[in-house]
Amino acid sequence: MSSKIIECIPNFSEARRPSVLEEIKKSILEIDNINLLNIHSDTDHNRSVFTYIGDPVNIKKATFNAIKKASELIDMNFHRGAHPRIGATDVVPFVPLRNATIEDCKSIALSIAKKVGQELKIPVYLYEESAVSPDRKNLENIRRGQFEKLKNEIQNDPKRKPDFGPSILHSSGATVIGARNPLIAYNVYLTSDDITIAQKIAKAIRYSSGGLRYIKAMGVLVDGKAQVSMNLTNFKKTPVHRVFELIKIEANKYGVNVSNSELVGMIPEEALIESAKWYLHLDDVGNNQILEHNINSTFD
Amino acid sequence: MSSKIIECIPNFSEARRPSVLEEIKKSILEIDNINLLNIHSDTDHNRSVFTYIGDPVNIKKATFNAIKKASELIDMNFHRGAHPRIGATDVVPFVPLRNATIEDCKSIALSIAKKVGQELKIPVYLYEESAVSPDRKNLENIRRGQFEKLKNEIQNDPKRKPDFGPSILHSSGATVIGARNPLIAYNVYLTSDDITIAQKIAKAIRYSSGGLRYIKAMGVLVDGKAQVSMNLTNFKKTPVHRVFELIKIEANKYGVNVSNSELVGMIPEEALIESAKWYLHLDDVGNNQILEHNINSTFD
Repeated sequence: MSSKIIECIPNFSEARRPSVLEEIKKSILEIDNINLLNIHSDTDHNRSVFTYIGDPVNIKKATFNAIKKASELIDMNFHRGAHPRIGATDVVPFVPLRNATIEDCKSIALSIAKKVGQELKIPVYLYEESAVSPDRKNLENIRRGQFEKLKNEIQNDPKRKPDFGPSILHSSGATVIGARNPLIAYNVYLTSDDITIAQKIAKAIRYSSGGLRYIKAMGVLVDGKAQVSMNLTNFKKTPVHRVFELIKIEANKYGVNVSNSELVGMIPEEALIESAKWYLHLDDVGNNQILEHNINSTFD
Repeated sequence: MSSKIIECIPNFSEARRPSVLEEIKKSILEIDNINLLNIHSDTDHNRSVFTYIGDPVNIKKATFNAIKKASELIDMNFHRGAHPRIGATDVVPFVPLRNATIEDCKSIALSIAKKVGQELKIPVYLYEESAVSPDRKNLENIRRGQFEKLKNEIQNDPKRKPDFGPSILHSSGATVIGARNPLIAYNVYLTSDDITIAQKIAKAIRYSSGGLRYIKAMGVLVDGKAQVSMNLTNFKKTPVHRVFELIKIEANKYGVNVSNSELVGMIPEEALIESAKWYLHLDDVGNNQILEHNINSTFD
């Protein structure tokens, strides 16, 4: 009954002029049913990250508005900041939340990318799950050389041809758009102050050294407690409960236990519900059996 | 950011005249932002149960509308049915869902009870968590003698005086209104076809024979599998995970395991999220860290 929810987290190349951020914010909020969750600005980076959620139709409208507004107010020829960037709206990831799939996000990303290229004459590169070639999956490849070098390369190097829009960089630069899975920042504390145990566990569970496919992990010491600090880059394929149970097993080997866990930032509801179902052996429970999921909100 | 969601499950003394149910349904749905989840009619009982959810303001409006409509269309003097009843709208429980508390439901129940008594001249009894005296906590006490006997007693027996409205029964009878906690119907299957094991486990875990405070349980045989069949009457105080883990421990004693679990009907989202947090040791995760819970829907 209730419909799809999408998250969008655009990064704009501005943090030092509050009036510009205010204008971008207004351009997003003039669209109905958009929930702006957070604006994080870093003045050293001279970069701001907006986080908002909404239904597919309105998230498209709000995001186009924001990209248009940023292109009018930010001139990349005068932008200075510590963070790599190629455009006024530098990167725009779309993330599937309740009832939405990565395919939904790919379709949204594609339609915005087209519109931005055609109507705003901004070169657009598709990345992550939306990438049309493997070398554009990774954002860093696309951003190589930044605005200053891309200006020349986009005109002369066929490998740098954008997926949409003209092969020429105006003052608003270029924009990277794509669908990606939600990322969960999840940390597990051990009943130990021995960082080497956390490091050994991190090594055992992370993909890069032979562990689970969608886990990045490292061992750190926080407030005198050993912590396994992680990013889960695809909780549908590598779920939180499997990670947690594996850490418990590894910790046991060293004679320690897990004390508590924490989330840094937010988690999609589905990740917690899937873990509850797994632990409680609720194999066949459907989304429509969760009372609150039967809300016909304005997202329909 | 997002606001309170309340569930209301009124029982009407009608199942044999679809046109009456249609009128009641219309009176509910003419209010904004009400989500009607289910209508369950039993013609032997001549009784229908409506389930809908909404915010506090609109759930009050919809429920008052429905009680009014039922009082116009159902004459208890002509009602026949197998189920005990005292009124056209027989009983109206309010249940707290997301962000709502039992106190919110008590306040809603009180305000509707007053309005129904004053404006519709229907005698109203407050029950469950809303009861003003212990003997009115239990619905069956209030319904004793049913419509037919209450007609006389309400005028002559001071113990039967309603909490609101006149001490006289018109054709729409009396109505019982109150707040109660959500009920979860949860069954756990064992890796055994021995019903006696399920019965022993049920006896061990249920309140009535010394078990957990908010558990009703019995052992049954379903599709050749032994099953512990339960009602959880207060999942906040006796949570699903504690029940499940206790069943596992008891089952182990008999050399069997749990295979799978099932929910009959619906579960409040919070029950699953609290279980996930318990299993994953996410002690300090707040509601605002769940992405979808940051929706400013029309419920605000």
